[in-house]
Amino acid sequence: MKSYKATLISIGDELLIGQTINTNASWMAAQLNDIGIQVKEVLTISDEAADIKSAMERATQQTDVVLLTGGLGPTKDDITKKTLAEYFETELVLNEEILSLLKTYYEKRNRPLLQSTAELAYMPANCTIIFNKKGTAAGMWWDENNTITVSMPGVPYEMKAMMEERVIPRLQKQFVLPAIVHKTLMCAGLGESIIAEKIKSVESNLPEHIKLAYLPNLGILRLRLSGYGSNKSQLEKEIDDQSNQISALLKNYHYGYNEITLQETLQKIFIENGWKLALAESCTGGEIAAHLVKIPGSSAYFKGSVVAYDYDVKKNMLNVDHQLLKNKGAVNQETVEQMAKHVLSKMQADYAIAVSGIAGPSGGTEEKPVGTVWIAIASKEKMEAKKLFFPLDRQNNILLTTNYALFYLWRFITE
Amino acid sequence: MKSYKATLISIGDELLIGQTINTNASWMAAQLNDIGIQVKEVLTISDEAADIKSAMERATQQTDVVLLTGGLGPTKDDITKKTLAEYFETELVLNEEILSLLKTYYEKRNRPLLQSTAELAYMPANCTIIFNKKGTAAGMWWDENNTITVSMPGVPYEMKAMMEERVIPRLQKQFVLPAIVHKTLMCAGLGESIIAEKIKSVESNLPEHIKLAYLPNLGILRLRLSGYGSNKSQLEKEIDDQSNQISALLKNYHYGYNEITLQETLQKIFIENGWKLALAESCTGGEIAAHLVKIPGSSAYFKGSVVAYDYDVKKNMLNVDHQLLKNKGAVNQETVEQMAKHVLSKMQADYAIAVSGIAGPSGGTEEKPVGTVWIAIASKEKMEAKKLFFPLDRQNNILLTTNYALFYLWRFITE
Repeated sequence: MKSYKATLISIGDELLIGQTINTNASWMAAQLNDIGIQVKEVLTISDEAADIKSAMERATQQTDVVLLTGGLGPTKDDITKKTLAEYFETELVLNEEILSLLKTYYEKRNRPLLQSTAELAYMPANCTIIFNKKGTAAGMWWDENNTITVSMPGVPYEMKAMMEERVIPRLQKQFVLPAIVHKTLMCAGLGESIIAEKIKSVESNLPEHIKLAYLPNLGILRLRLSGYGSNKSQLEKEIDDQSNQISALLKNYHYGYNEITLQETLQKIFIENGWKLALAESCTGGEIAAHLVKIPGSSAYFKGSVVAYDYDVKKNMLNVDHQLLKNKGAVNQETVEQMAKHVLSKMQADYAIAVSGIAGPSGGTEEKPVGTVWIAIASKEKMEAKKLFFPLDRQNNILLTTNYALFYLWRFITE
Repeated sequence: MKSYKATLISIGDELLIGQTINTNASWMAAQLNDIGIQVKEVLTISDEAADIKSAMERATQQTDVVLLTGGLGPTKDDITKKTLAEYFETELVLNEEILSLLKTYYEKRNRPLLQSTAELAYMPANCTIIFNKKGTAAGMWWDENNTITVSMPGVPYEMKAMMEERVIPRLQKQFVLPAIVHKTLMCAGLGESIIAEKIKSVESNLPEHIKLAYLPNLGILRLRLSGYGSNKSQLEKEIDDQSNQISALLKNYHYGYNEITLQETLQKIFIENGWKLALAESCTGGEIAAHLVKIPGSSAYFKGSVVAYDYDVKKNMLNVDHQLLKNKGAVNQETVEQMAKHVLSKMQADYAIAVSGIAGPSGGTEEKPVGTVWIAIASKEKMEAKKLFFPLDRQNNILLTTNYALFYLWRFITE
């Protein structure tokens, strides 16, 4: 089977002065890899005609697919369309459909259609047009000299819609691509090396055409199985089989599949059971609550959080014993248990999480160094507390604590 | 004055399968721009010798400086050093100093020095070595054929240390570069177009060699002045003068300079005055608290936050009037004022912020559409409330609300 390669060309001065990070290229690379097209090179260049042409020469010589982003807007530094028309030796001609879409777009917004914007309706005569459902600048598709060339806007959500709805399906139709199947097991609560030890028996027996990648990030580990072959449904069966074997070895640590977050998993379980959740946060300072509230619909189960950053607030709003704080400080088992117990009853919740720790960079002692964290999980019947130690910087210690707290809650309610 | 150009070559398969976003390139581009070297192109390529050589050919033909990152580690896919030695027609020879640094590094960590790692001490014979203070793989500097070529590790903090301590100073010494002075005015609370209108008189009279860039992000606007010339101290005076003129026109909206955040600005003012801050958050769900707590030292002034996501919690923990919630809901002036007032007194704070709104995507009504937010700021003497409307998605509406709430607090205490 022929293997196909792509070059990505990212156009825009903002990318070369360090003002904008090129997130488009990595997103597009992941999409192409998922359908079996390998990215050979990413060229990031300025809005200069000579640079665009030079990049096109290089890209068409070395790869079968060239995807360009950027430089399609209405301002005078946007020259990609004009330059590509020159490169493909054609003229810009009025496209009535785009003009009418532009008129509707500006009428709806009660804004006049300026001449500079109306120029977006003039398109190269010899390309296939990719209409823009999320914005105003259309994309272009050429199939010339054994190379597919596609030009798209640089605005991420406009580009993503075009890729998902038009470019990827059309590439899959045009080329005979290998079947590729991915499945990701979402895990938490254990380090990479311990997980590797636990699943050694499966990993060492994986067939040649199935790969396993470890993608760790702040207490969450994504285990990504990728299968390559020609028969998609057979591959899917094989990947499911491997995934089930791995899952069985990671019981209590494997919480879901395919990019689902702990918050989404918890939200689903809480809403299905009609349960309510309350939090009492010290060192995370509201981060756990903010994580939960990111997910639409969280108000159906999330009661709230008392962010008690100060001793007095721990006393007055969470009933933590004055003598305890005075004698033992705020980072210990009794304190997080009192915090959890009080917020559970005060907010009339079914479950509560409480955390207290030393995020750093200062505030540590020999006995309790920076990175020491206590987490308590409470229900009306049960209480569990854990002491953890995180070795990173302030912000990452907060995020690690957040992920571990959500993981312990998940295990508490599913065990 | 000759102008100098650079090519960045980012090496690593992880960049081409979409697993890692190329943040190194934008950081390096910003550094080079700051000293007056323009980045012409970024080439992102795989760990393949032929690709590295092809990228080197292209880069040395078109630019004066070539900075490579990645592919210097001890694993077998790291081939940058070997490939560059071939490219520069030299041999790898043992560097005793690096070997001794490696021995110390591993002894300190109680780990054996493996043969594969010891190979890091073999360096191309004809390069200048850039020692790695943060890790194990050294960098290389060549000055051949009118081009400076520098190879550095891809680990961001190792690369950044080498750039800041060695590469940037040496480039500045080797080339006669223009003097460049940057100064950024941090503003909030007004949209880009209104700010532009307010500072029109200064902007339209800026001399040719001073540029102004508008960099908006979720309610924060960075106004970046960049001056280009040959006399640095004179440029600094000119930039200060323009910056003062702009600042005077943006009174009450310009809160600081050079990347300082609203949280840092507030923390400084609160600690200087011995003031304490309390929060009552509904729609932001803890995000305002999490923003404050990101800054080390925030425990010196931040009391805590009641994240009241649920009506009952607003009643029980923030004393919001039951009838008010029943008749008018939670998104209105009276509710945020009651929230602010209660948390101020309950947490014994000097100032309080309260927010309530509809972050979306659902929950809106005709009268109160998604994006409607009320913010109250309270002290013992004074109360102010504002109604705002944010048109973005859930997560961005939360971040906009957070930035506006912090901005209103800043204005409340500085007016």
